[in-house]
Amino acid sequence: MTYCLGVLLAEGLVLASDSRSNAGVDQIASVRKLNLMPPATDRVIAIQSAGNLATSQAVVTSLHEAFGSGDGARDLRLAKTMFEVAGIVGARLREVVAADEKFVEPYGDPNASFLVSGQILGEAPRLFQIYSAGNSIEATVRSPFLQIGETKYGKPILDRVLTASTPLNETARLVLLSFDATMRSNLSVGLPIDLLIYRGDSFSTANLVTVEDGDPYWNTLRRTYSQGLTALVSSLPPPPPAWGA
Amino acid sequence: MTYCLGVLLAEGLVLASDSRSNAGVDQIASVRKLNLMPPATDRVIAIQSAGNLATSQAVVTSLHEAFGSGDGARDLRLAKTMFEVAGIVGARLREVVAADEKFVEPYGDPNASFLVSGQILGEAPRLFQIYSAGNSIEATVRSPFLQIGETKYGKPILDRVLTASTPLNETARLVLLSFDATMRSNLSVGLPIDLLIYRGDSFSTANLVTVEDGDPYWNTLRRTYSQGLTALVSSLPPPPPAWGA
Repeated sequence: MTYCLGVLLAEGLVLASDSRSNAGVDQIASVRKLNLMPPATDRVIAIQSAGNLATSQAVVTSLHEAFGSGDGARDLRLAKTMFEVAGIVGARLREVVAADEKFVEPYGDPNASFLVSGQILGEAPRLFQIYSAGNSIEATVRSPFLQIGETKYGKPILDRVLTASTPLNETARLVLLSFDATMRSNLSVGLPIDLLIYRGDSFSTANLVTVEDGDPYWNTLRRTYSQGLTALVSSLPPPPPAWGA
Repeated sequence: MTYCLGVLLAEGLVLASDSRSNAGVDQIASVRKLNLMPPATDRVIAIQSAGNLATSQAVVTSLHEAFGSGDGARDLRLAKTMFEVAGIVGARLREVVAADEKFVEPYGDPNASFLVSGQILGEAPRLFQIYSAGNSIEATVRSPFLQIGETKYGKPILDRVLTASTPLNETARLVLLSFDATMRSNLSVGLPIDLLIYRGDSFSTANLVTVEDGDPYWNTLRRTYSQGLTALVSSLPPPPPAWGA
């Protein structure tokens, strides 16, 4: 399983992906699911992936190799907007699945899905989810975050607190807490977490960090939050006496 | 969809079920999914249900009608332990599914699952989950809560805060917050919530309450929690400066 989360904010983007890949009980590996296209001065493009690893790697690797090639159908260096980028990723996904599915289906699901985000000069940062069907939806101010993979455990804290105007650094806390909630409940989502805090108009991905087991900030955040949540629940008003508690 | 939650505590039990029943887009009804067997001085037995409504109602209604009948295979009045009660519910489920499944399957899933809980004189309160297969697992001090239906959204807050030694009235708050998290994310789980706070050795279900839309405690609890959570996240330590936030 996988958990990938992307948040579109007034200040930029916060992206995070776990690294657990498991194909049955005897194969558990650590895999990077947050991929960046090669550096370019006028664009930052990130692709987060979930689903069949062979499919998602074929899509991402072929786009990485085509970057700067001049091949109009695949070269994300030539895309004029992030919407065009999302369309190219979806088209590659359809091609890979069409080529592989009849061979893969006897063994499992060949499908994959993606979060595609970043910024192209002249646009604000944008964030898309590419469905297995190859079509896509875009995050907006009203729906500022998108998730793929094991999405449910980590959603309530985002629903309660996150808005498009939440600052980058507070969003980073929420994103990590959303991952912590998921990892406590589902062992197939695991550390390390790749985290990119992208400030709009910076066109820099220098901030990409990997949160490993034992990371001091990760440990402090989780402990402080759990203690604070326990204290918060204790401080809430008790039920009416007639309810019998 | 459905969400049912049962918690086994040192002080007793807290049970809650939503009331939304939907079979397709044009049929949404309110249904009681927390059922109590008839009153008896030496036992309290509650059955919470999820899954196919015809199946779950057939199981619960037939057991209700057989209560006190003297039919050893079905009469929960004669059961000596809650483990025996769980076995009878599982056996009824198997009978109902065996009788109906070939007729029902063309239209949908005939399966159901249950939380069975309560207390029989001479035992402490106990809580079981009955799987669709008719077998069961029991809650323990290490795993004090069991869920059926739409379980994921409401699980993180329980995982973080709840233990078997949490007091009844604090558990009631957590249970309602777990429902609030679920209902915010899944429209097919809806009010009213049936809530029973059962104090061990009371052999009384007089505290069964129905939390309706507009209930003042429900509204206060949700608002106070959301405000507190937002303040808590803001108070957490910010990420290291090198992370770029």
